[in-house]
Amino acid sequence: MDLNEKSLILHEEKVGKIQVASKVAVENREDLSLAYTPGVAEPCRKINQNKEDVYKYTAKGNLVAVVSDGTAVLGLGDIGPEAAMPVMEGKAILFKEFANVDAFPICLDTKDVDEIVKTVKMISPTFGGINLEDISAPRCFEIEERLKKELDIPVFHDDQHGTAIVTVAGIINALKVVNKKIEDVSIVINGAGAAGVAIAKMLKRMAPKDILLCDSKGIVYAGNPTNNEYKEEAAEITNKDKKKGTLKDAMVEADIFIGVSAPEVVTEDMVKSMKKDAIIFAMANPIPEIMPDLALKAGAKVVGSGRSDFPNQVNNLLAFPGIFRGALDVRAKEINEEMKLAAAYAIASIIEEDQLKPDYVIPPVFDKKVVDRVAAAVIKAARDTGVASV
Amino acid sequence: MDLNEKSLILHEEKVGKIQVASKVAVENREDLSLAYTPGVAEPCRKINQNKEDVYKYTAKGNLVAVVSDGTAVLGLGDIGPEAAMPVMEGKAILFKEFANVDAFPICLDTKDVDEIVKTVKMISPTFGGINLEDISAPRCFEIEERLKKELDIPVFHDDQHGTAIVTVAGIINALKVVNKKIEDVSIVINGAGAAGVAIAKMLKRMAPKDILLCDSKGIVYAGNPTNNEYKEEAAEITNKDKKKGTLKDAMVEADIFIGVSAPEVVTEDMVKSMKKDAIIFAMANPIPEIMPDLALKAGAKVVGSGRSDFPNQVNNLLAFPGIFRGALDVRAKEINEEMKLAAAYAIASIIEEDQLKPDYVIPPVFDKKVVDRVAAAVIKAARDTGVASV
Repeated sequence: MDLNEKSLILHEEKVGKIQVASKVAVENREDLSLAYTPGVAEPCRKINQNKEDVYKYTAKGNLVAVVSDGTAVLGLGDIGPEAAMPVMEGKAILFKEFANVDAFPICLDTKDVDEIVKTVKMISPTFGGINLEDISAPRCFEIEERLKKELDIPVFHDDQHGTAIVTVAGIINALKVVNKKIEDVSIVINGAGAAGVAIAKMLKRMAPKDILLCDSKGIVYAGNPTNNEYKEEAAEITNKDKKKGTLKDAMVEADIFIGVSAPEVVTEDMVKSMKKDAIIFAMANPIPEIMPDLALKAGAKVVGSGRSDFPNQVNNLLAFPGIFRGALDVRAKEINEEMKLAAAYAIASIIEEDQLKPDYVIPPVFDKKVVDRVAAAVIKAARDTGVASV
Repeated sequence: MDLNEKSLILHEEKVGKIQVASKVAVENREDLSLAYTPGVAEPCRKINQNKEDVYKYTAKGNLVAVVSDGTAVLGLGDIGPEAAMPVMEGKAILFKEFANVDAFPICLDTKDVDEIVKTVKMISPTFGGINLEDISAPRCFEIEERLKKELDIPVFHDDQHGTAIVTVAGIINALKVVNKKIEDVSIVINGAGAAGVAIAKMLKRMAPKDILLCDSKGIVYAGNPTNNEYKEEAAEITNKDKKKGTLKDAMVEADIFIGVSAPEVVTEDMVKSMKKDAIIFAMANPIPEIMPDLALKAGAKVVGSGRSDFPNQVNNLLAFPGIFRGALDVRAKEINEEMKLAAAYAIASIIEEDQLKPDYVIPPVFDKKVVDRVAAAVIKAARDTGVASV
């Protein structure tokens, strides 16, 4: 039986993957009078007197909404909110199993930015955090931006930042392996969607020599009249020399290639045109921009992908559980850039320096140390930047 | 330690009462590849091809949103969405513990009818049913009505129908005890809010001699210019003779008094003015319209209240778990009047006729037979009326 059949059977047998469970027993009249009426009125009164007490007496502080409109689900594209449910439930159980975060899927019957923003705001009293998921670019940028402004709970678009954080963790370690410094390297990112733009922004904070962001039409440059607002913003922090050209042109003499785009758009020759000890993260899924073995054969030194059957898997699962664990634990008002970068360094730090190797720059997803390390780093950064409430 | 203190400690110790749990293990790469990527893509594809498969491969079919804006919470009134959370979590765990329904609190940051309707519609792809809770009248009527029209999943406002169903169950049995027929009795309902109007509508279907609905200003009558749309509608199905007057006037020669209003508005003399073998359901909480012992002393034959420390407690918990269990099991498109009435008869039927007594017309909430009996009756009525999908 193949994986797809097995997955169908699992989903059908269990009828989905999540359930809502009670933390208290309700077996007799006394239980009922404490957990429900009339006793429940007392925590209600307390919260009515002091809204912050909602974190003390309810589950809010550990509840995260996994919000999607189903427009950019896995490699499947715009499949709608119902078809997105298996992924959102999957995300919810990963939150729970990896970081004891109680996450709940909220699949939205709209693709309209205003409606999505409004709906999430309306339901926010229930939640301690919002994880946006599989919402297509560029809408995802505006939705996240507006929600961050308008809500005082953490809002995090995992497709952008989760991917960026783990990629950056891999880059941090890969640079050590090839013995290069970030300020000396040129980076090419192929894919100017949610993940590509977020990776560019995050790497920019680390001050590399240059970043070239490419989309399907070639190198992104400031002032290109076809740029939308978000691409223009990304263009302005990349491509110092306003280069124009193709992905192939961009890769000549580059130190790092990061692909979050389409299968097989990178050839061996393109890898050969890069600087010595090139670093390749080819994360198109399931078929990478270039297969890892081909990239190595063409001379790349460190190669990662999105696949679990090759070394150095860039998997968001290394990031989002610990990030939300940390943010919720200190009731952070937001997940800011410092917290994200701290998470990247925390993930990178899981592999001791003397254990770093070209095929081991990213820790495995089941490494039990990751969540706690990430959460601790996120907590520290939240406190240092003044966004922690407790 | 009193009940309030105990309840606070329970809520604080557990940090709320609900959690989201996984139905599948995620302990290794294979688990991950089945429950999440890449295997999860297959149920997504199936649902994309056939939307109904969302019931097959996801938890939707067993998920109920417990939706509130926090405007009419218990006896506390408009305390806001955060302060409503303990009640909604309580409701959620009762759904789970009594009927294995996975219910999740959705507390809304708005009191606007349009916004509430829109938000619930937007999040509906996640849910198999909507339980509206503690939303003040008359807004609750419009919200429920619109959602019922616009959604193809069951929508149920428990404060209206849950209360009505259990009250009617009590009336069915009480009439047997006093040996009267519904077509011969005059009924007075005090309180023209969510519960009062719903009780009037449900009893009307059973064709009593007459119903007089009273609000704080006295007997409700058709054509009263102060009636809102919903009160006018209720007026038109009650008060055949367009009587005007006070609650006291209404109660003279009545057979049944049902109170869903305010404490201590009924005196012993008012009970004495009723017909012989009067039935009293005084459900204002925590202080009834008249204390049960006083009502009995004044000559009432059957007395019920909302309190667990007196006989014949009218408790919604007898209704909503089984109703949703039944509706979800056959994927009913709605919860219609026939299903509600079937639920009332099912609850009444729990007490064998030879066991009926004045102080035992409503079964206790922990009677394990109730949920299954109600669910079975609801399923039958759903099938008979053509609203069951499976």
